[in-house]
Amino acid sequence: MALIVQKFGGTSVGSTDRIKNVARRVARWRAQGHSIVLVPSAMAGETNRLIAMAKEISPSPDPRELDVIAATGEQVTIGLLAMALHAEGLKAKSFTGPQVGVLTDSTFTKARILKIDQHRIRKALADGNVVVVAGFQGADEDGNITTLGRGGSDTSAVALAAALKADECQIYTDVDGVYTTDPRVVPEARKLDTITFEEMLEMASLGSKVLQIRSVEFAGKYKVKLRVLSSFEDEGEGTLITVEERGTMEQPVISGIAFNRDEAKLTVLGVPDRPGIAYQILGPIADANIDVDMIIQNVGQRDTTDFSFTVNRSDYSKAISILQAVKEKIGARDITGDNTTCKVSAVGVGMRSHPGVASKMFGALAKEGINLQMISTSEIKISVVIEEKYLELAVRVLHKAFGLEKPPKSKLGLTGRGETDIITPS
Amino acid sequence: MALIVQKFGGTSVGSTDRIKNVARRVARWRAQGHSIVLVPSAMAGETNRLIAMAKEISPSPDPRELDVIAATGEQVTIGLLAMALHAEGLKAKSFTGPQVGVLTDSTFTKARILKIDQHRIRKALADGNVVVVAGFQGADEDGNITTLGRGGSDTSAVALAAALKADECQIYTDVDGVYTTDPRVVPEARKLDTITFEEMLEMASLGSKVLQIRSVEFAGKYKVKLRVLSSFEDEGEGTLITVEERGTMEQPVISGIAFNRDEAKLTVLGVPDRPGIAYQILGPIADANIDVDMIIQNVGQRDTTDFSFTVNRSDYSKAISILQAVKEKIGARDITGDNTTCKVSAVGVGMRSHPGVASKMFGALAKEGINLQMISTSEIKISVVIEEKYLELAVRVLHKAFGLEKPPKSKLGLTGRGETDIITPS
Repeated sequence: MALIVQKFGGTSVGSTDRIKNVARRVARWRAQGHSIVLVPSAMAGETNRLIAMAKEISPSPDPRELDVIAATGEQVTIGLLAMALHAEGLKAKSFTGPQVGVLTDSTFTKARILKIDQHRIRKALADGNVVVVAGFQGADEDGNITTLGRGGSDTSAVALAAALKADECQIYTDVDGVYTTDPRVVPEARKLDTITFEEMLEMASLGSKVLQIRSVEFAGKYKVKLRVLSSFEDEGEGTLITVEERGTMEQPVISGIAFNRDEAKLTVLGVPDRPGIAYQILGPIADANIDVDMIIQNVGQRDTTDFSFTVNRSDYSKAISILQAVKEKIGARDITGDNTTCKVSAVGVGMRSHPGVASKMFGALAKEGINLQMISTSEIKISVVIEEKYLELAVRVLHKAFGLEKPPKSKLGLTGRGETDIITPS
Repeated sequence: MALIVQKFGGTSVGSTDRIKNVARRVARWRAQGHSIVLVPSAMAGETNRLIAMAKEISPSPDPRELDVIAATGEQVTIGLLAMALHAEGLKAKSFTGPQVGVLTDSTFTKARILKIDQHRIRKALADGNVVVVAGFQGADEDGNITTLGRGGSDTSAVALAAALKADECQIYTDVDGVYTTDPRVVPEARKLDTITFEEMLEMASLGSKVLQIRSVEFAGKYKVKLRVLSSFEDEGEGTLITVEERGTMEQPVISGIAFNRDEAKLTVLGVPDRPGIAYQILGPIADANIDVDMIIQNVGQRDTTDFSFTVNRSDYSKAISILQAVKEKIGARDITGDNTTCKVSAVGVGMRSHPGVASKMFGALAKEGINLQMISTSEIKISVVIEEKYLELAVRVLHKAFGLEKPPKSKLGLTGRGETDIITPS
C-alpha cells in the first residue's frame, strides 16, 4: 500500500496502443492497493511537431507563446491515458500542471519548479482515482503557462514525488535500467541494481542519457527514491538510484564507463600567464552560446601557458574562428584544434576510498597504445580525451580492467536486498 | 478607435500560412488604432484528429477527459497566432479560456458560459496587446477544463464581445456573408447587407450553416453587434446581424429561402385521438437520440388522427423500426414513410406585417406542379416538405417570386447606411 509516482516517457505513450499498455500495467499496481500518480510525457514526436509549426511562423518564436503550444502535447496524453484507465475499470482523473498548482518561475521554455500544491492531487487520490498529471509544465505566479525544457517530465515526476512524499518515483523508459556502459560497445555490459545520485549525475552528463540531469539533482536534494525501469518489459527491477553509498565492504570501486563521441578539443598556445586570461578566452565562446565541457590550463613556462578546452563537435568551427580573433587580442602564439577526439570516463564513488584508480586506468589504456590528450578528474570521476578511433577499444579495456562484467559480490553477501527492494505489482 | 472582437474559424487558421494571413489582416486594423481581441478556432481537422485518438482508446470516452484533449486544439492556434502577430511587429498575448476566467457550467463537451472575468483581457489590452483568446473552451467552478461543443468558438467570441462591451463582433468564415439562398442553387442569390437575429436563427437552423445558433441567440440577448465576413477576401462588409428590424417602409417581406435536403418524413396512420399519444410516439424516438424536426398532427376523424414528423434522413430506418413497435402498443393502423423528401422555407420578419406571404408561396409552387406534403409555420417562417427532386426548382421559383435577386430599395432610400456602417480597417 505505497504511494508511487510513475513517469512514462514519450516512446512509452507513443501510440494509443502503447497508452493502453501503460493502463494495463497500472491496473496491476492498483490491484495491489497502491496509490498511483502518473506523469506522462507528450506522445513521441508530438513536441517536435508543435515546435516545427511554431518555427514555420517565426524562426525565433516568443518563448511565452512557445510554451502555450508545447504544453498541449502532455495535455493530450493525460486525457488519453485517463480514458485508457477508465477502459481498464479504474477511476482516474487527469490534471494539467497549472491545474494542480505546479508553480514555476517565469523562465519560459526552461522554467524551474518553485512549489507544488499537493491539495488537489491528495483529494483526487483520496477519492480512489489514479491521478494523471501532465509532466513538463506548470504556471508562473501570473498564471502564464510554462514548460520545464526538454526531458522536463522527469523533473515533474520527481518534484511531485517529493511534494507528496511518495514511497518511490519510478521512471519508465525504453531501457531497463542503468548499465555499466553502453551494451552496444561492450556486450558484457551489466545492468546496475543500484547507483548513487552522484554517479548517476556523472553518467548522465557524460552521455548515458537515461534520466534528465536536473531530475537526478532534484531527487538527490529531496531524498526521493528514484528507480529507472523499462516500460516494455514486465519483469525486472530496473536500477535504483540511491542516496547512500552502497555497503563499503564489497562495493565496486567503479560503477561504470561513460563516454562521449562528440568531443572536439581546442588549444590556445602561448597564452600570457596573467589573471583574467581564462575569462578573455572563454567569455566570447560563452557569448556565442557554445557549451564548454572540459577546461585545462597547463602550468605556464616562461610567463606563458597553454589553455585547452573541449566543445561539442558541432560548435568546433565556430569556436575556432572566435579564437582566431581572441588570439590577436590577447597576444597568444597560436590556435590548434582537433575535432576527431572523444572522451571516456570511469565513474564511481568507490574511488573516494580506493587510491590507485587513475593509475590503473592510465595503465590499461597505455598497454593498448592509446595516447591521452587531456585528463580531468573529479572526486568520483576520471575523464580522458583520446583519439576517436580508439573509443570502443578504450571502453572495452576499461570495462574489463575494473571487472564490471562481473556482478558485485554484495549481491550474495553483506549488503543484501533490503536496500534495493522494489515495490512490485505482484 | 473601436474595440472589436474577431473570430476566425478553423479553415481561416487551417495552416501556418493562413495564420500569417490573419495576422497581416489584424495588423491593418491595429494600424487604424482599433483594439482587437481575437478568438481563433482549432486548425481545421485538428479537433477531429484529437477525437479520433480518443475513440481509439475508448468508443465512448469520458466527457471530462475528452474536453481536456479537445481544448488543446485551440490552445495551439492561439500560440501560433500570437507568434504571427509578433512577426508583424505587433504586441500580442495569448490566453486559454480558463486563463481569462471563462467560467462555464460542468456539462462537459457542451458546457454553457456562465461568466467571463474581463479583468485580465482589459489589462492586456491596456498594455497595447492584441489579445488572443482560445475559443470553444472554459473552466467550471472546480477548475476543470470544459468545451462548448462544436462551433463553440462563435459563442466564445460573442460572449467575450458582450462581456467587454465591444463595438462589434466579427465572425470571419469561408463565406463572405449571409445570402438570400444558396448561390449554388440560385446563381442570382444575393448577399444580404443586414439580417435580423430572428431571421438568422431560422436561416441557420434550416441549414444555412454560417453561424452557430447558440452564438446568434447569445448576440441577440446581449445586443452584440454581430457581423459575418469572409476571411479570404479583403473587401466587403459581410452581413450585419441586427437587433432592430430594418426600416419598415422599404423592407423586403422575405429575407431568404432556406432549405434542408436531408429530411425524411414518417407518418403514423389511424392513431387513437387521446391525450398523451404524441408523447407515446415521440418518447421512444427521443430515447434513441433521434432529433425530430417538424411535427404535424392532422385534425382527427372518427376518434383517430394521423401523426407526421420529419427526422434527419440518416435516422430514417431506425425511426421506422421504432415506430413499428409503437404501432402495436398504441393500436395505430399503419406506418408510412418517405426518405426522398426535403424541406424548403421562406424566412423573413416582414411577414409579420405583410399578409399573403403563405398564399404567394403556395401559389408559386402550385404553378410548377409541386405537391406540398407537409406545411409548418412560425411567426417569421413558412416551411414546406416536398419531393426531393423538386428542391432546386422550388428554391429558384420562390427566390424569384419574392424578388430576392433585386437589392432592397432601402439601399438607396430611407434606411440609409448609418445603421449598417462597418468599422473598416482602412
